[in-house]
Amino acid sequence: MAKSKIIHEASVNLHTASYPIFVGTNLLDEETLLQRFVVSKQVFVVTNETVAPLYLEKVLAAFGKYQTNFLILKDGEAYKNQSSLFQIFDALIQFNHHRDTTLVALGGGVIGDLVGFAASTYQRGVPFIQLPTTLLAQVDASVGGKTAINYGQIKNNIGTFYQPRGVVIDVNTLKSLPEREFNAGLAEIIKYGLLESPLFLDKLTHLIDDGFTSAKTEVLADLIHACCLIKAKFVETDERESDHRAMLNLGHTFAHALEAITHYDHWLHGEAVGIGLYCAALLSNQLGYLDAEAVQHIDQLLARAKLPRRIPKTIDLEQLCELMAKDKKIQNKQLRFVLMKEIGNCYLDNSVPDQILRRVLTKAVEGDMQ
Amino acid sequence: MAKSKIIHEASVNLHTASYPIFVGTNLLDEETLLQRFVVSKQVFVVTNETVAPLYLEKVLAAFGKYQTNFLILKDGEAYKNQSSLFQIFDALIQFNHHRDTTLVALGGGVIGDLVGFAASTYQRGVPFIQLPTTLLAQVDASVGGKTAINYGQIKNNIGTFYQPRGVVIDVNTLKSLPEREFNAGLAEIIKYGLLESPLFLDKLTHLIDDGFTSAKTEVLADLIHACCLIKAKFVETDERESDHRAMLNLGHTFAHALEAITHYDHWLHGEAVGIGLYCAALLSNQLGYLDAEAVQHIDQLLARAKLPRRIPKTIDLEQLCELMAKDKKIQNKQLRFVLMKEIGNCYLDNSVPDQILRRVLTKAVEGDMQ
Repeated sequence: MAKSKIIHEASVNLHTASYPIFVGTNLLDEETLLQRFVVSKQVFVVTNETVAPLYLEKVLAAFGKYQTNFLILKDGEAYKNQSSLFQIFDALIQFNHHRDTTLVALGGGVIGDLVGFAASTYQRGVPFIQLPTTLLAQVDASVGGKTAINYGQIKNNIGTFYQPRGVVIDVNTLKSLPEREFNAGLAEIIKYGLLESPLFLDKLTHLIDDGFTSAKTEVLADLIHACCLIKAKFVETDERESDHRAMLNLGHTFAHALEAITHYDHWLHGEAVGIGLYCAALLSNQLGYLDAEAVQHIDQLLARAKLPRRIPKTIDLEQLCELMAKDKKIQNKQLRFVLMKEIGNCYLDNSVPDQILRRVLTKAVEGDMQ
Repeated sequence: MAKSKIIHEASVNLHTASYPIFVGTNLLDEETLLQRFVVSKQVFVVTNETVAPLYLEKVLAAFGKYQTNFLILKDGEAYKNQSSLFQIFDALIQFNHHRDTTLVALGGGVIGDLVGFAASTYQRGVPFIQLPTTLLAQVDASVGGKTAINYGQIKNNIGTFYQPRGVVIDVNTLKSLPEREFNAGLAEIIKYGLLESPLFLDKLTHLIDDGFTSAKTEVLADLIHACCLIKAKFVETDERESDHRAMLNLGHTFAHALEAITHYDHWLHGEAVGIGLYCAALLSNQLGYLDAEAVQHIDQLLARAKLPRRIPKTIDLEQLCELMAKDKKIQNKQLRFVLMKEIGNCYLDNSVPDQILRRVLTKAVEGDMQ
């Protein structure tokens, strides 16, 4: 067994619950660390067919002293649906798991969201832990307790707020992560930069330019830890997204509609966020805030992270607008956008004129030059 | 419009939320009262085909100033399933309801549990209110925030703890309630008597003997209010049923397995609780607690409330035991029973010997004389 090392420890402190986040190397078979989250005598691991061959065995071994069962789901955002959810329930029932079982989400954001939702509703709630294996899940999805399935052409339409008992991030898993998946994670990190500060964004720009593939484990661990701290801060202020937490949805009103219109099988979530961030930048600019230079800077950064930034010509913009009108952030029937006054200074805008939105979408279609 | 009257007001005070319970007459079209729970501009009423012809129109009228849509489900415990749940989601999506909509559960315990679950998971949680129209829902199901569907032969297997914004109990609805439904409600009231005190049980015995059909509205309102106070006390002590709240499941480990084994279409929930309470009394007696006289007293009280008290001969006791072994109250793989030391003094027992349980079940089968 390779030597494990905890590099950073953080925590999410809420009124209802607090839990730790560990960032380090070789943590997926660190028995003592993982077993501290087990409530009783049963453990149920859910993963997908991509992750299973890589890490399932070692995770099962770490929980070897308990009744441990597992389920392997198909991989992809298109499987974040009620069918996968009920597969989890069926397996829990088949192996007779009780209310004091502990669920383990081993995988990316899709697995984390699905398992979190199953945990929040199986027998009215069982504990669960997050073992995120993609960059996107490590910096975003595994922290903060948002769980969901996609339903009725609306992303994350059915779900809960339900916090894990702990998040264990093994940065070694990034070594096996396909480049496309890694870049998708960068989209959420760029989002944090846009929310947080020009300084954070500059640091990120350098890292991207240097090429992450050669990056040291410690550098990645530092970056992931920094993102978790930003996320935790937003979540601690507003766990159930009454207001402030909605900022984390920068670019996501566009992204969610783009994912829904392509039936969740065209882009990775982070890729759709890439386009969404560009659209948010354009919209901010059109409303008289973010200057053209900043828009270009964001566009170039997304390009350097090899992320898509334009809406394909094949997308029906009218239908896209209809899907955006079903966004979860709607209040009093008004769509709320997260927009940028400048880099590091975002705000919620619930009065974007329809014609400006349409102009931005048209400008964001691929082939148009800005 | 008949004159409305609030007879009692109570409240449930939790760390996470507090909400009022109103008990009175002609409250279902009391606009001011009902509208105070509406968050924004949308209202969605869910009811069933039995209740709809009686009360839907007046409830819709009370919310007339909002965008109000409704859904009518089939009636019965057999419909407390994922199909009904997704019917609610589909209708909410069809009518474009947003996260600031308000759901209204108009009906008995099945409707309340379903709507509560839908509310807790639609767009990660929308507000809802309870307008219970059966005695059982008024004294029990509408208060305390337990939501669920039945799944995989396990009663309430998938659900959440999610509190309503308010409970409005119109005792007039009991006038239209079939006697069988009314008696099913009495089972839960008898349960409160067994949990609470011999005095409460005596009072209830007199009421049952006098015949409720002639009972004055005020008497019913007092009784319902008293039950809500008992329920609220348990819920306030232990919202998520870590421990103390489990007491409210007196008789329910038996009842839930009996409902599951008959596919939820043989008994009303309260009827299964009738048998469950008798079984719990027998088991308490066999373990050396409750004396034979008290068992007989409970049996007679259930009989006078015209509730079933015996397990039909057609039930396979072996299969019933298997279903009981899937009960949600299991901890460390041990089944926990709520049992009676004496009337008004219950306790949790997680070490009931299997042979005693089987003896009790055999004794409780119809045709056997105790």
